[in-house]
Amino acid sequence: MQGDIRCAAIGLGRLGYWHAENLHTKIKSAKLVKVASSRAETAERAARELGVEAWTTNPDDVFTDPDIDAVILSTPTDTHARFLKTAALHGKHIFVEKPIAKSVEEGRELVRLVEETGITCQVGFMRRFDPAYAEAKKRINAGDIGRPIYFKGVSRDPVSPPEAYIKHSGGIFLDLAVHDFDMARYLMGSEVRSVRSMGSIQLHAFMGEYGDVDQALTYLNFESGAAGDVESSRNAGYGYDIRGEVVGTEGTLQIGSLRHHDLRILGPKGSSHDIIPEFATKFKDAFLLEMTHFIDCLRHGQKPSCTAIDGLRALEIAQAAADAFLSKEETRVL
Amino acid sequence: MQGDIRCAAIGLGRLGYWHAENLHTKIKSAKLVKVASSRAETAERAARELGVEAWTTNPDDVFTDPDIDAVILSTPTDTHARFLKTAALHGKHIFVEKPIAKSVEEGRELVRLVEETGITCQVGFMRRFDPAYAEAKKRINAGDIGRPIYFKGVSRDPVSPPEAYIKHSGGIFLDLAVHDFDMARYLMGSEVRSVRSMGSIQLHAFMGEYGDVDQALTYLNFESGAAGDVESSRNAGYGYDIRGEVVGTEGTLQIGSLRHHDLRILGPKGSSHDIIPEFATKFKDAFLLEMTHFIDCLRHGQKPSCTAIDGLRALEIAQAAADAFLSKEETRVL
Amino acid sequence: MQGDIRCAAIGLGRLGYWHAENLHTKIKSAKLVKVASSRAETAERAARELGVEAWTTNPDDVFTDPDIDAVILSTPTDTHARFLKTAALHGKHIFVEKPIAKSVEEGRELVRLVEETGITCQVGFMRRFDPAYAEAKKRINAGDIGRPIYFKGVSRDPVSPPEAYIKHSGGIFLDLAVHDFDMARYLMGSEVRSVRSMGSIQLHAFMGEYGDVDQALTYLNFESGAAGDVESSRNAGYGYDIRGEVVGTEGTLQIGSLRHHDLRILGPKGSSHDIIPEFATKFKDAFLLEMTHFIDCLRHGQKPSCTAIDGLRALEIAQAAADAFLSKEETRVL
Amino acid sequence: MQGDIRCAAIGLGRLGYWHAENLHTKIKSAKLVKVASSRAETAERAARELGVEAWTTNPDDVFTDPDIDAVILSTPTDTHARFLKTAALHGKHIFVEKPIAKSVEEGRELVRLVEETGITCQVGFMRRFDPAYAEAKKRINAGDIGRPIYFKGVSRDPVSPPEAYIKHSGGIFLDLAVHDFDMARYLMGSEVRSVRSMGSIQLHAFMGEYGDVDQALTYLNFESGAAGDVESSRNAGYGYDIRGEVVGTEGTLQIGSLRHHDLRILGPKGSSHDIIPEFATKFKDAFLLEMTHFIDCLRHGQKPSCTAIDGLRALEIAQAAADAFLSKEETRVL
Repeated sequence: MQGDIRCAAIGLGRLGYWHAENLHTKIKSAKLVKVASSRAETAERAARELGVEAWTTNPDDVFTDPDIDAVILSTPTDTHARFLKTAALHGKHIFVEKPIAKSVEEGRELVRLVEETGITCQVGFMRRFDPAYAEAKKRINAGDIGRPIYFKGVSRDPVSPPEAYIKHSGGIFLDLAVHDFDMARYLMGSEVRSVRSMGSIQLHAFMGEYGDVDQALTYLNFESGAAGDVESSRNAGYGYDIRGEVVGTEGTLQIGSLRHHDLRILGPKGSSHDIIPEFATKFKDAFLLEMTHFIDCLRHGQKPSCTAIDGLRALEIAQAAADAFLSKEETRVL
Repeated sequence: MQGDIRCAAIGLGRLGYWHAENLHTKIKSAKLVKVASSRAETAERAARELGVEAWTTNPDDVFTDPDIDAVILSTPTDTHARFLKTAALHGKHIFVEKPIAKSVEEGRELVRLVEETGITCQVGFMRRFDPAYAEAKKRINAGDIGRPIYFKGVSRDPVSPPEAYIKHSGGIFLDLAVHDFDMARYLMGSEVRSVRSMGSIQLHAFMGEYGDVDQALTYLNFESGAAGDVESSRNAGYGYDIRGEVVGTEGTLQIGSLRHHDLRILGPKGSSHDIIPEFATKFKDAFLLEMTHFIDCLRHGQKPSCTAIDGLRALEIAQAAADAFLSKEETRVL
Repeated sequence: MQGDIRCAAIGLGRLGYWHAENLHTKIKSAKLVKVASSRAETAERAARELGVEAWTTNPDDVFTDPDIDAVILSTPTDTHARFLKTAALHGKHIFVEKPIAKSVEEGRELVRLVEETGITCQVGFMRRFDPAYAEAKKRINAGDIGRPIYFKGVSRDPVSPPEAYIKHSGGIFLDLAVHDFDMARYLMGSEVRSVRSMGSIQLHAFMGEYGDVDQALTYLNFESGAAGDVESSRNAGYGYDIRGEVVGTEGTLQIGSLRHHDLRILGPKGSSHDIIPEFATKFKDAFLLEMTHFIDCLRHGQKPSCTAIDGLRALEIAQAAADAFLSKEETRVL
Repeated sequence: MQGDIRCAAIGLGRLGYWHAENLHTKIKSAKLVKVASSRAETAERAARELGVEAWTTNPDDVFTDPDIDAVILSTPTDTHARFLKTAALHGKHIFVEKPIAKSVEEGRELVRLVEETGITCQVGFMRRFDPAYAEAKKRINAGDIGRPIYFKGVSRDPVSPPEAYIKHSGGIFLDLAVHDFDMARYLMGSEVRSVRSMGSIQLHAFMGEYGDVDQALTYLNFESGAAGDVESSRNAGYGYDIRGEVVGTEGTLQIGSLRHHDLRILGPKGSSHDIIPEFATKFKDAFLLEMTHFIDCLRHGQKPSCTAIDGLRALEIAQAAADAFLSKEETRVL
């Protein structure tokens, strides 16, 4: 594409606003020309704050606007399928937040549609763009730990999202563990064959109503023969605790620490440093890098490194994990 | 007891020899008077190297010797029951390596016998004496992390024991994970109610013959409602990797690092420090402290902090985990 | 100022090019309209690579261009005075690399000129914009370590600049230690009253010809009564090693680690992580933040947080340190 | 020597008591047979607590006792010369706390006397026995960091000793920095040729009366051409902060952290671990190891790895540092 990429953002919740801001203030070759939210007040305020020309409450105003090249989709999961279809029909390129769809069936249809229409579609697995994870991938590929035999992931949120969100979130496996499932495939270089899942409610009784838990564990068997586990939690009041590890035949590689600022204070009560409080701080660079990658791909007509198919594969694992939790049985990822 | 405690050591494998050496060279109020091994050569050499007066290949020489107060038992698990019974009958106090017995039934009988005869019996859960774990227990009890809601344990051995050992080891849950199961009870302050277990063979095909695996994961449900997981591995070529974590409502407590010497070297290839190579280095202090505790208990007529019942409880969890691995079902700890 | 700030970059060495690139590709409210270098080839290539309209080998083309608002000056120190004067006369705002001038006298004249002409002048002490240093300042101001009583700075370069650079660098105190002297004033909240300096040549014999050393130590006495030391080195082949510490009456605050990517690999030879290789990696964010701050100050008519006077103060300390090194005596900072 | 080494301890302050306790309770081949203190109450209590047969307030009771092989001397520095002479005359072996004497002249005389009488004399530079320092020496000798070019030492005490002690301590260079001077020689493998010293009083005004300071910095020039610096402080309220570093041509080696227990707690206020509070905790193992080494040397008729000459060399550097502080000039170590 020539000139700036003209973008619109649909969905202006916390993450959506952020994507919009990154596009508008930090990526020189992109131009944010429209913002959309189901709530007029939200759309109007975002447009004003960011200095964007147009806002709307009607997503169709975005999809039918011939002046728009690409759409950033940060709406609830159950709207993804509809918006992605409309976008594909109008030839808009799409950056879509994970999970790509609310069911595997929907996800498969979307992948087909993306392939048929030839639009560019990137899924928001920002961890792939985090410098530590990216370096990890490089080191593993270079053989620094030998052949990968075990994956270990931990994702602990400092607080649970509110009940209103949990209700539509698809549950802890689809909403939270899906990031680790993507990392598992990515870093191990193998698809997941089957899963077993366990979980419990520790602090959020209301989750029981929605068949959800605030603490889960998934055991992974990979096609390669390797194994792994993913711990997920909504109960980490102390901070945003994301860890990754790949054990290989020649060593183990551990990704991530919780340290926020690169300083520590030593006093009579001990040595302390601050902890990354939430995802926005942890993955600040990654969010900007993934959006820059999306824009670069559009400019140079290249395929993103993280496509709709990656979105689908992670969803398939997450769905199998959710099923396994209910059935208490080992469940194949299909 | 008055004067030095007169001890004998039965079983002079690596750990047994070590206990003997600690007793003989580092604990002033103990005296090692006899060593025993099924192999004459081993017993003779240990006696010579340590400067101990007597050695034997017949354990009964130890149990019937009126001059001996206490016996350190580091023999294969399947001999524990027989030796413990003989010791109890002759009124010898016992320090016994974990697991206390090769089956829960045997373990229960031994606990009864210990209670009936009134002998002092301490089980070799040395982690309880490691300064980091001991401090962790103190901090948890002090409420520093609120109410415990999740336990996370990792025990990775740098190499697998040889096939001859694996054959009689009782499997990874009884032989290795049992340490984490003890820590789980100890640090969480609650018994384990049920378990689910998974595992795989990554590097040691021969384990398949014995129904064993070189990589396992156990999910724990505690009586208190808390949950947890324990990862066990024989595949950590990089070092002896023992980690423990207790997540509480007010924070999380992480125990252990792999750093060996307190120094690091920075060169053109990065910053590096050495890793604790094996259990003997990691728990050097703990092994001495547990033996000192045993001798102190005998001298002052006190009950050890880690008794036959603790040995039994950890064995019950380990057995349930082994059963759960076979049945692929959630298994109650009885 | 309205609209984009129109900038020119003079001096396109490594750091100069970088500033130009940051301005051009990452700061949306700035526009780089001209680049200048004494070497045509360098200027032409930079213009082409960055997509800048105009280039020149004549700095006066920049200063007399009515279409330019601000100039980024990354030329050798001995040209600063002349260019700053010309800039001030033509009312161009200036971002100038440290040290602000090659002598204290020159520096004072420049400060006067800046004040008289009212131009905005920011000095390139990027450490102030590094998130760790900025947070350190905040924590110290909040009283987290009590009253500051000792400052400790280490700046070790992985390699020496080439002889051609060293010759005109002003020596290790003006060229390298000046960053720590700025941090000393900034973090301790007190001016430096006197200094003593020592040094030696370890690896770069050629430095002797220029009265320079590749290893130096400066002891600082502050107006407040506090003390401190600054170690400077050109010999750290292992990486770019920048450390800062402020000891207070209630604790100590340590800034900085050498860790590059947030991951580590554990193998049979130990645990290792990579090290920040050079200043560009270490202060990537800080370089962008300081330039963003400069542009923001111009847009909103505000004074930078790091002005010509700060440049002068640090230079005064550095000059006193250089004098003290020669005289071997305690030297007042005037 | 045959049988247990029969020892007496003179001086039962904190460190003296500790040495006595280590000897008596942890070193099987040693026997503590007498304790002496100038205060009857102190001697009597120590004898009672440790279960030692005899106590005295008269050191001559120790030196003339034919039943005593070796004496542990932990008395004030200004008594060392007298007691060492008496010991040598009576053929008693000596373990003496640092500094070996209160003046270089005295120190030299003592070294002569030790050589003439052939007694075994070990000086209490326990850092040499600390596992981290010992490993550092090994790694440096193995060439892991190339040729050493810079030494960096920090010793910060959490509190100042009381005025009564400071008065007779010989000042911060002889009392505190002397440990770093020994490490400097030891790790750099080169003698110190000249020093420059600086210092200030931050928190303890009373020190001015004794010409002492609570914060000092010494710059070192080695015979090898290498350089270094040693920071000393009495003001580290946050803990016992001992650091060592040797920069070499191929890398740098850093010794020591302040972490006490190997655990950390993460809560809403950040991540924290406890800090080593004082020397006794930091060097617990080293104190036992140095005493074990002393006893082993006596048993096997070997020379200690840390002799009176090492004590003298460190004292010479310390004295030169103290002189340099007064003269403000570079001072040769003679």
